[in-house]
Amino acid sequence: MHILITGGAGFIGVRLARRLLADNHLRTAAGPQPITRLTVLDHVPASGLPEDPRIRILTGDAADAVLLRSIIGDGVDAVFHLAAVVSVAAERDFDLGMTVNLHGTLALLEACRATGRTPLFIKASSAAVYGGPLAPEVGEATALFPQTSYGMQKAVGELLVDDYSRKGFVDGRCLRLPTIIVRPGAPNLAASSFASSLVREPLMGRAYTCPVPRETAVCVLSVRRVVESFVHAAALPAAALGHTRAVQLPGLTMTVADLVTALGVVGGAGVVARLSFAPLAEIVAIVKGWPVRFTPTRSAALGFAADASAEEIISDFVTDELDGKVVR
Amino acid sequence: MHILITGGAGFIGVRLARRLLADNHLRTAAGPQPITRLTVLDHVPASGLPEDPRIRILTGDAADAVLLRSIIGDGVDAVFHLAAVVSVAAERDFDLGMTVNLHGTLALLEACRATGRTPLFIKASSAAVYGGPLAPEVGEATALFPQTSYGMQKAVGELLVDDYSRKGFVDGRCLRLPTIIVRPGAPNLAASSFASSLVREPLMGRAYTCPVPRETAVCVLSVRRVVESFVHAAALPAAALGHTRAVQLPGLTMTVADLVTALGVVGGAGVVARLSFAPLAEIVAIVKGWPVRFTPTRSAALGFAADASAEEIISDFVTDELDGKVVR
Repeated sequence: MHILITGGAGFIGVRLARRLLADNHLRTAAGPQPITRLTVLDHVPASGLPEDPRIRILTGDAADAVLLRSIIGDGVDAVFHLAAVVSVAAERDFDLGMTVNLHGTLALLEACRATGRTPLFIKASSAAVYGGPLAPEVGEATALFPQTSYGMQKAVGELLVDDYSRKGFVDGRCLRLPTIIVRPGAPNLAASSFASSLVREPLMGRAYTCPVPRETAVCVLSVRRVVESFVHAAALPAAALGHTRAVQLPGLTMTVADLVTALGVVGGAGVVARLSFAPLAEIVAIVKGWPVRFTPTRSAALGFAADASAEEIISDFVTDELDGKVVR
Repeated sequence: MHILITGGAGFIGVRLARRLLADNHLRTAAGPQPITRLTVLDHVPASGLPEDPRIRILTGDAADAVLLRSIIGDGVDAVFHLAAVVSVAAERDFDLGMTVNLHGTLALLEACRATGRTPLFIKASSAAVYGGPLAPEVGEATALFPQTSYGMQKAVGELLVDDYSRKGFVDGRCLRLPTIIVRPGAPNLAASSFASSLVREPLMGRAYTCPVPRETAVCVLSVRRVVESFVHAAALPAAALGHTRAVQLPGLTMTVADLVTALGVVGGAGVVARLSFAPLAEIVAIVKGWPVRFTPTRSAALGFAADASAEEIISDFVTDELDGKVVR
């Protein structure tokens, strides 16, 4: 099986690639498929991947239809489509968001369709698809009124994946991700970046100013669990998904204050002391529109699970990304 | 005010153009705007329009970005976007539907955005956006799982219009049309075509074989009312629309049998005798997925109304389109 990961230099992409190579196979509804090739595409070269003859690292534009068609045409059986311009960036640069998030997804779907082989197509969607007046709990039965261009582009992507799947052009799944923590690396232009930064930066000995207030509610899922969710999505039979290929992944709902408390449990008071708060209107406005409680019935029935606790998420991060070392 | 109607050779487009020219102005939230120019674009030449120095009839591709930019750039203040590849045609020719319904809408929105003047943008959407498991009544709070490519393309169009409106690129409204009757002309490739044909053809002395059974439920709105709804949508202040620019227009819910009864009241038993029934699986499959009862709260609050009765719809058709003459 030849697998493509777009956005494969991103933190989820790299960890998904490592996981797939370690597993040596991808389980689909037809059973475990040996992984013979893994192509990783991103606009920057992917790093942090093992030396492995099966892997090919490509640098290119995830909206380049010609490039995508040449990659997919080279025997790709499964695509994990993670490439995206993140929320604040897509809001600031409308054209860039449209090009990558909407036209890029379309080009990738068209490249899959051109093969005539119905590739597995697993796409990262986002809880940013929700917006407008929301019930206390939201999920797949919630009407989508995204209030950011990023959310609109993700919602359009879901509609496309549903229809391309219905037509048999791809065998799609779209996972609506809650806020994924703890993202390694530097803070980025995702509006949700703070939720990772406020854990990561202090644990690494750096001061961090959180751009949302302590009472801000978030719904978080660990990097370990989101990688597991992408792998799990591949194994689901299409019939189990029913009238839509979209699934809202579950998460743990808590406030920023709760996350800080867990950070103190794992890292100690000295770590927490590196945090300060100075709300930024642009970020607060985007984040306050996001729902934080999801109806878990569909995700549970399909076998997706949330983490056990914020403490576990943070200590797994210390184990996986910091070699067990906290700067106290 | 310079107005563009795309799909302006279609039955709604021509009647909307006539109405606008007769009114001499278009009422917007800022008050009545004198109509100085009316451009009608379609892939076939529009006919049935009055001689009028304000009108310009263009033949061209509603997905041609260069053409659209040149038209819109020529001082267009308001667009009625009616151009579409209809349901069965978009289902049979996926590429054609994507080109016109999705890429065409995008190109038109981009042309509007390029003006920097936030044109009024009033788009025909459709009850075909709904699908999957549905409550007995559906509306703007219903999650959209379209089960046709046409429905998907209309749902994507709504998401685009909402976001382009939020960004101030256009001032959008999307009207989800129920089945519009009585469409003049020959039967076409809209799956809903039967609802017009079974009234029109017998009244004009022709036999008609209906491709859905008598017990099929439909939700219908008259041509008069849909034209009135497009004009009314222009007058609404953006603030009245709230979190989405989409509005489900109301209609009258009835069975095909009810419509046939009304046809008998207006035209007599000899007219009804020209009807026969022979269900076609392709049409039945599409039509049975459409909801026929809509929650009217939002449309009523915004001032949209349904017709009084099926008899009135049919006798208005005889007056407006048949010069009052029924072939008995």
